[in-house]
Amino acid sequence: MAFDRERFMQLLQLPRYHQFLGLECVAAEEDSVKLRLPFREDFLADEAGTYVHGGVIASLIDVAGDFALVTTFGRGLPTVDLRVDYLRPALKEDLFATAVVVKKGRTLSLCDIVIENDAGKKIAVGRALYSTA
Amino acid sequence: MAFDRERFMQLLQLPRYHQFLGLECVAAEEDSVKLRLPFREDFLADEAGTYVHGGVIASLIDVAGDFALVTTFGRGLPTVDLRVDYLRPALKEDLFATAVVVKKGRTLSLCDIVIENDAGKKIAVGRALYSTA
Amino acid sequence: MAFDRERFMQLLQLPRYHQFLGLECVAAEEDSVKLRLPFREDFLADEAGTYVHGGVIASLIDVAGDFALVTTFGRGLPTVDLRVDYLRPALKEDLFATAVVVKKGRTLSLCDIVIENDAGKKIAVGRALYSTA
Amino acid sequence: MAFDRERFMQLLQLPRYHQFLGLECVAAEEDSVKLRLPFREDFLADEAGTYVHGGVIASLIDVAGDFALVTTFGRGLPTVDLRVDYLRPALKEDLFATAVVVKKGRTLSLCDIVIENDAGKKIAVGRALYSTA
Repeated sequence: MAFDRERFMQLLQLPRYHQFLGLECVAAEEDSVKLRLPFREDFLADEAGTYVHGGVIASLIDVAGDFALVTTFGRGLPTVDLRVDYLRPALKEDLFATAVVVKKGRTLSLCDIVIENDAGKKIAVGRALYSTA
Repeated sequence: MAFDRERFMQLLQLPRYHQFLGLECVAAEEDSVKLRLPFREDFLADEAGTYVHGGVIASLIDVAGDFALVTTFGRGLPTVDLRVDYLRPALKEDLFATAVVVKKGRTLSLCDIVIENDAGKKIAVGRALYSTA
Repeated sequence: MAFDRERFMQLLQLPRYHQFLGLECVAAEEDSVKLRLPFREDFLADEAGTYVHGGVIASLIDVAGDFALVTTFGRGLPTVDLRVDYLRPALKEDLFATAVVVKKGRTLSLCDIVIENDAGKKIAVGRALYSTA
Repeated sequence: MAFDRERFMQLLQLPRYHQFLGLECVAAEEDSVKLRLPFREDFLADEAGTYVHGGVIASLIDVAGDFALVTTFGRGLPTVDLRVDYLRPALKEDLFATAVVVKKGRTLSLCDIVIENDAGKKIAVGRALYSTA
């Protein structure tokens, strides 16, 4: 693997909000990553506590796209814009984000991200643009 | 105000992820709300701890749009899709979300959301579609 | 008006696809424009010929956002991404696009665009990002 | 093929705006289609006449996603929202749109669309939501 995995893990795990999310790296290679978001009660969206908040899923999408680019750029990159389509509710379960780079440009790069649950059902899809200037 | 403010506040403050965010209501009337997100270190995006995570801002956008509709529907509504444009970094500062309903439909409703900092600078703009079936 | 209106009109009216659209300028000042799209049968989306195609509306959104920036930059700018929310069908009627610059940046600029019909009903809203590098 | 191909072709080719586009069907099966947009001078975006207008590409994306659903529903479906990311300019060349259904729901369905040129280079990617109520 061409990129610095130790640095990658620091960038993934040291920021305060990433600590809250509790992100784990399942796989990472150039231009793609798979992250795991272990379920936490703090992610719940409703009083009854049955499903994960859309903002947590959006966060996971944003981070996963960013880290697909960290494999190339070795640093976190500012998100320019982010789009999330929610397909089905995430229940009290771990989530997995698979991100791939669609276009790696001189100033802008685009990533596609898929969120699945443990059973492999698609929970959401995302697309995000990052500044790589 | 036609809507049940007590119920509105329960929906805003009881969910676990909303507790993490620490959301406050600045103003709410039919079809629009203004929320305040008091700064917390847990929101920070980078090791150096200088700016708020894009996922936190996306979460605030999602919640604010949802609650602009709660004023009519009296319950949280599933987000269909969410789009965020980041305009400038949010530093260690409180954020304010102003959400307005663009279209209130029988099955789908659309909201526009603006995120500003304490100085009134625009941090991000969002647009989100909710299921109101 | 600081910008070159004659040049603005050439850019608006000379390109072949703009000729197909038949775009007219209702108003233009720095960072905002209002364009008119006179109805043509060629815009119709369905066999019965009752409503305007979503692609025509997306085109009008793209052009209007671009020309809100032409007032500053004096040239057409590449669209990075485009988002359109359709609110109600456009019938056999003229459409009006009002575009404003949300953020004018060194490398990227964002515009908001509203499409209305002659009666002032909102047909669609758009948001588009342009490269201003 | 389970769907009515003759009806599919009528829906694709009879509407006035589709006639302007000159759309051809390369392949169609349940939940996916590949369309061809033969180059026309009328699509050109700039005075110099070097590249295809982003609105034409957005139109192709909208139609292709719609027709991936026509294979199931047997009729055109209203677009709820549309997002396009432009990756590189389309020159004076034919374009191909491949659309697949990401989620087919009771009231809403989501499609992913990729636009490529003759050489197989990605020109744009799109994602669109349709009302299937």
